[in-house]
Amino acid sequence: MNVELVNTGSELMLGRVLNTHQQWLCRRLADLGHVVTRQVAIADSGSAIQNAVREALGRADLVITTGGLGPTSDDITRELIAELLGKKLVENKDVLAHIENFFAQRNRLRPAKTSVETFVPEGALVFLNQFGTAPGLAMKLADRSWELGDRKHDVPSASFHLPSASPKWLVMLPGPPRELRPMFDAAVVPLLKREFAEEIFVCRTLRSTDIGESRVQEMVEADLQRLVPRGLEIGYCARPGAVDVRLTASGAGAEKIVGAGVAVVQTILGANIFGFDDDEIENVVVKLLTEQEKTLALAESCTGGNLAHRITNVPGASAVFLGGVVSYANSAKEEFLGVRAETLQRHGAVSAAVAGEMAAGARKKFGADFALAVTGIAGPGGGTPDKPVGTVFIALAAAGGVTVEQRLNPWDRATFKEVTATQALACLRARMLSA
Amino acid sequence: MNVELVNTGSELMLGRVLNTHQQWLCRRLADLGHVVTRQVAIADSGSAIQNAVREALGRADLVITTGGLGPTSDDITRELIAELLGKKLVENKDVLAHIENFFAQRNRLRPAKTSVETFVPEGALVFLNQFGTAPGLAMKLADRSWELGDRKHDVPSASFHLPSASPKWLVMLPGPPRELRPMFDAAVVPLLKREFAEEIFVCRTLRSTDIGESRVQEMVEADLQRLVPRGLEIGYCARPGAVDVRLTASGAGAEKIVGAGVAVVQTILGANIFGFDDDEIENVVVKLLTEQEKTLALAESCTGGNLAHRITNVPGASAVFLGGVVSYANSAKEEFLGVRAETLQRHGAVSAAVAGEMAAGARKKFGADFALAVTGIAGPGGGTPDKPVGTVFIALAAAGGVTVEQRLNPWDRATFKEVTATQALACLRARMLSA
Repeated sequence: MNVELVNTGSELMLGRVLNTHQQWLCRRLADLGHVVTRQVAIADSGSAIQNAVREALGRADLVITTGGLGPTSDDITRELIAELLGKKLVENKDVLAHIENFFAQRNRLRPAKTSVETFVPEGALVFLNQFGTAPGLAMKLADRSWELGDRKHDVPSASFHLPSASPKWLVMLPGPPRELRPMFDAAVVPLLKREFAEEIFVCRTLRSTDIGESRVQEMVEADLQRLVPRGLEIGYCARPGAVDVRLTASGAGAEKIVGAGVAVVQTILGANIFGFDDDEIENVVVKLLTEQEKTLALAESCTGGNLAHRITNVPGASAVFLGGVVSYANSAKEEFLGVRAETLQRHGAVSAAVAGEMAAGARKKFGADFALAVTGIAGPGGGTPDKPVGTVFIALAAAGGVTVEQRLNPWDRATFKEVTATQALACLRARMLSA
Repeated sequence: MNVELVNTGSELMLGRVLNTHQQWLCRRLADLGHVVTRQVAIADSGSAIQNAVREALGRADLVITTGGLGPTSDDITRELIAELLGKKLVENKDVLAHIENFFAQRNRLRPAKTSVETFVPEGALVFLNQFGTAPGLAMKLADRSWELGDRKHDVPSASFHLPSASPKWLVMLPGPPRELRPMFDAAVVPLLKREFAEEIFVCRTLRSTDIGESRVQEMVEADLQRLVPRGLEIGYCARPGAVDVRLTASGAGAEKIVGAGVAVVQTILGANIFGFDDDEIENVVVKLLTEQEKTLALAESCTGGNLAHRITNVPGASAVFLGGVVSYANSAKEEFLGVRAETLQRHGAVSAAVAGEMAAGARKKFGADFALAVTGIAGPGGGTPDKPVGTVFIALAAAGGVTVEQRLNPWDRATFKEVTATQALACLRARMLSA
């Protein structure tokens, strides 16, 4: 089964927004056994959308489009696809009632523009939008109507590869992620299960810290290659502060062969593996804290809240995370964390001594079992020959005392914050594992 | 001029990583006058990469690929494209010296795997990688070699639209963003300026808060439509807590017509416009604070550091941002912010009274001009009939006293944090504008 994704939106082509649909939909579809074979993004223009959808229908069994179903004048996907397929748009009473109700519940007048959303291609399945107004749409195409539709827009007369005459599905989803995601889970997943045979696909990602990408491959590749003839596929991906090893296989023996690959990587990389698949190191740390019934406090300077933000992204963090201080100003380091003025003067705010006092102060003031502190130079300004941009001190306070590590992360400001926070969390994880 | 982007990587198709290259490259290219007409993502497989590149070369004047140039076994883009174009891979001494030096500087042995990176298609321009090992590559294609290359991989025999026989450029960039981005700016931008006539393209985005997408369009659409016959293109985009109005035009009069559109939107939406283009509300707030020489402190409960993280993403924030407290535990609200135990008991942690005391406490303890405080229920758990998931109180303390607003943001945890932080920053902005 071939699946293709067509993301519409001029804002994508102008680089004004990030295409989060690709990752989310590709991930969900892969987990259902349907790996997306091609994703295309094009602008909201007649010929671009019709060409892309027509080509995709020529190759794939399932085509999913995103965007262009809303009420504004650049939302033209519904009209263009109806035209491509030679279908009329007809008013749908359920959609109308849903939209009337949507605005009534919010005590707002229904904007006249939303009327266009009540018109759907004849014969289309309608998915009511639980978090918005524009419905999702699905059409089963038993003929090659996309080649025959009465099109106003310019379409080049190329010939297309048509692998089979079996029915195809075209699914159209609204653009806003908080509308698209629940709709996919509630309406598209059941449709796929009903219409397409489930395929077995297994994917496991092992996530490691503290070793570079080339070195990771050198360590595991030879042993993994022995499993390739049995159907294992191997991938590597370098992330800020982490390297992922991805193992995949399809078909009946997939679970077993991927399991064998996982065992190989675990044996070789050992404690450098901090998690699997969607595990972020903050999730792993919150899980360890929860299991060991320990609490955490933070004292952040250069990461500026990134550590706290990531920890509090984990549902359930409130049971183990007491809080943190973002002490940008030196006075805040003294007032909230008890860092001594003398230490700041003698060593400077970016120093092992200040990092240590920040961690000890946070641990004491919050009454936590562990406290992590970071102080460093995120840049772009503030570097010196002694302490160049990217210098960072990471301190960990625990019952046994305070330890401090120095690192150099000479990246852009955003990457610096992300990598430094990951390293701090990796320090805590290592300590908790050795306890 | 047509530009297409081909992003390679099985991790993209499996939904394991977000494709940030699309936004970044589309944005950079649009700013240079070259709007990307199509972006395609495909897996690291021979036929998928060769088909996508061949089709793109058939349509575009410039094709940029990302990924697959590294040292690991799934990095096969360079080999496949050389094969597609019928070019040999030859060792490049500059690349070899660069890679030797890269590892020598880091006191590390050069992994044997990096040898493949020293081989480049004959005749290719080489961009040395300042932040990694794999070089970027650029090839001027004067003939239609991609149709003639000696290909091992399966390519369907479709015919392709070949708009001109003028030379095309194929540029191949490495996958890691911190390698790709500096390389694009240092090497690809000069190449584009030299090889392609500059085109005039103007894009301005006006960013608004506090009005829904349909309502924004109702307010501005009629007046903007009058400018469409003169070449204005209009787009709308709903974001967490914000709606963007995007105005674009091409050619000689572009600056003037977009300027007229900007004036229309500014007149109608007034103070709801918080910024332009890449302005995030945190950048706008830091700018206002800097101009008015005021300082800010934060007291965060439900946003868990998101506010501090966003403020400290702004370069120069340290001059106006004194710090913040992430007070997840009630004891932290008392200890660090002076919230009274009685207030917590009587009203609960999620209440207007506690938000107000958090803001007043943060303002006093940090000695700041302004303090923002947020307390709410991010979910998924913790809601009550009185205070459902999504309930949030936003308090602002200033010289004149404390104000508190109540909002309902019933979204997923991540969206809740983002929207709530945006609303808090919008409160502060409104106060600073009215001062």
